[in-house]
Amino acid sequence: MSYRNTPVLVTGGLGFIGSNLALRLVEQGAQVTVVDPLVPGCGGNLHNIATVREQVEVIKRDISAAGHFASAIRRARVIFNLAGEVSHIHSMEFPERDLLINTVAQLRFLQVCVRHNPGVRVVYAGTRQVYGKPEYLPMDENHPVRPVDFNGVHKYAANMYHLMLSRSGQLDAVVLRLTNVYGPRMSLAIPCQGFLSTFLRCILTGQGLEVFGDGKQLRDPVFVDDAVEAFLLAGAAPALQERTLNVGGPEALSLLEIAQTCARAAGGLSVETRPFPEERAAIDIGSYATDCSLIRKTLGWKPQARFADGIESTLAFYRARLRHYLDPENPQADCSLPEHKGVQRRLKYAAV
Amino acid sequence: MSYRNTPVLVTGGLGFIGSNLALRLVEQGAQVTVVDPLVPGCGGNLHNIATVREQVEVIKRDISAAGHFASAIRRARVIFNLAGEVSHIHSMEFPERDLLINTVAQLRFLQVCVRHNPGVRVVYAGTRQVYGKPEYLPMDENHPVRPVDFNGVHKYAANMYHLMLSRSGQLDAVVLRLTNVYGPRMSLAIPCQGFLSTFLRCILTGQGLEVFGDGKQLRDPVFVDDAVEAFLLAGAAPALQERTLNVGGPEALSLLEIAQTCARAAGGLSVETRPFPEERAAIDIGSYATDCSLIRKTLGWKPQARFADGIESTLAFYRARLRHYLDPENPQADCSLPEHKGVQRRLKYAAV
Repeated sequence: MSYRNTPVLVTGGLGFIGSNLALRLVEQGAQVTVVDPLVPGCGGNLHNIATVREQVEVIKRDISAAGHFASAIRRARVIFNLAGEVSHIHSMEFPERDLLINTVAQLRFLQVCVRHNPGVRVVYAGTRQVYGKPEYLPMDENHPVRPVDFNGVHKYAANMYHLMLSRSGQLDAVVLRLTNVYGPRMSLAIPCQGFLSTFLRCILTGQGLEVFGDGKQLRDPVFVDDAVEAFLLAGAAPALQERTLNVGGPEALSLLEIAQTCARAAGGLSVETRPFPEERAAIDIGSYATDCSLIRKTLGWKPQARFADGIESTLAFYRARLRHYLDPENPQADCSLPEHKGVQRRLKYAAV
Repeated sequence: MSYRNTPVLVTGGLGFIGSNLALRLVEQGAQVTVVDPLVPGCGGNLHNIATVREQVEVIKRDISAAGHFASAIRRARVIFNLAGEVSHIHSMEFPERDLLINTVAQLRFLQVCVRHNPGVRVVYAGTRQVYGKPEYLPMDENHPVRPVDFNGVHKYAANMYHLMLSRSGQLDAVVLRLTNVYGPRMSLAIPCQGFLSTFLRCILTGQGLEVFGDGKQLRDPVFVDDAVEAFLLAGAAPALQERTLNVGGPEALSLLEIAQTCARAAGGLSVETRPFPEERAAIDIGSYATDCSLIRKTLGWKPQARFADGIESTLAFYRARLRHYLDPENPQADCSLPEHKGVQRRLKYAAV
């Protein structure tokens, strides 16, 4: 399947991975509609799609209001479902906010999809966070699901919605379980969006890097172009035997190696280790590395970009347009804690 | 540990299993507080605890309003957490109602437990429904979790809350995964509460029994006294290595055998098979039988009552007080669909 002239919907399409995906879909000639409410703190940024703004229909709504854009859902040949909140730390502080964004909204959205476009292919952006602390590495899709934070629980509930509705033929969904993704269009000004966002913010503002713990914990970052390729393949694949696929990077590196690579790319900055803050230690999963053999077999996908190369092109991207990602005057980049509390308040609903 | 003079809290304590548990706890000398909002359609019935009404504190609130009974949570030595909605069929028709009752309310409740009684033992009433269609029988706790309906997804999200908060030391929870439980105090007038409720309603009103499909599907019903014993043991056990324990019956019987046993106990009624209605076929899991070896090893529990005996004492119980369970004038027993829709409306909350 080619995406030429294919109507597609991208939820969370102004966010980090969603916007990169939307750009690639436009390049491939798809008719792209993105849905994104630009909720402060969730990483949506209109600048992310500035270069293709005229070719993309933008619906500024939360996916839980899907009834308001049912026609876009109805005509979509593929739905890329990336809307959500990714912060593990925030989920522990505001669990109900995380539940609303990652579970309640998905339930409402998927019910509209089932009603207006039964059987539609949906590619859902899941997370390796659902696995919790690895029992073995590299981690495959059969690893037990034992999330260590509310974000993992809520993302897994949405994951189950997709698969349950697919087992009964109401959807044709595939869940990609993403490890740490990095690259252009990541939000840099929002706290707690993962260590790679923090590292990038530090090196772009000339600060040294801090690594929590002894720095020996492994991660396998995946460059966003590779992640986008996995979404494109998953959206276009014919009948799927496997509906849960890990998406990981090409190398398992220690946090210290990752920090040192970032520091070198930035022309030499300090890297220091320091003890885990308590709230992070509680939800740290230790080392992680992905077994990508199932997605390789199923979709022919494997990660291409080595971390040192990916981080170079990422820095080049940001250096040319830093103000769109770090300017405190830019409201998209503003996500202080009081703002979060405001969101939390607005999201409150009546007691059962 | 003995329950004598022990303060305990039972959520869903006016419902089927919860009220049987509350009665046994009173017998054992515990200081029993039950929480139950008597939501129409969820099976709560004040008559269930009529014989011990004076010895039990009843809080008529939803668990999501736990802030209003924080003092009861604070003093509880054990919390038996049985509040919830059990209907698979209703969950498919009103998924958001099910999400609110089984997940949102649990999140709110557990946050209050963590705040006011950190580390408290919580025994959660989980369900074998989370497993979905069995890949092998009898089913142990390592079977993959692949729910076939919204109820299974939402109960599993609450299941994950309990375990996640226990891994981080904020609670000391154990999840009992119950198969079909039957016995006195089951609601008989509420539709879609499981085939055993339906069978009992039919034989108590002299109607013949209908079995969906060919009747060969296996089930292993567990008598409520046995289920209650599992809760008591789980609440009293010292440090737990295993936090997820299946609770099943002593015999795997075909639905036809179960129906015939019921019909015989009622003095001889007809049993017929008929094709599955579409909405039930979609979420039917086929045969099920529980592997109870883990709970036997962990708590020394095993089911005692054979089905033929359990159903005899169940019928004796209902015959003596049928009007409290079937009288259409009794509002506790009234749960028509419009009523459900009313609940659904009241539960609505502001869009995200």
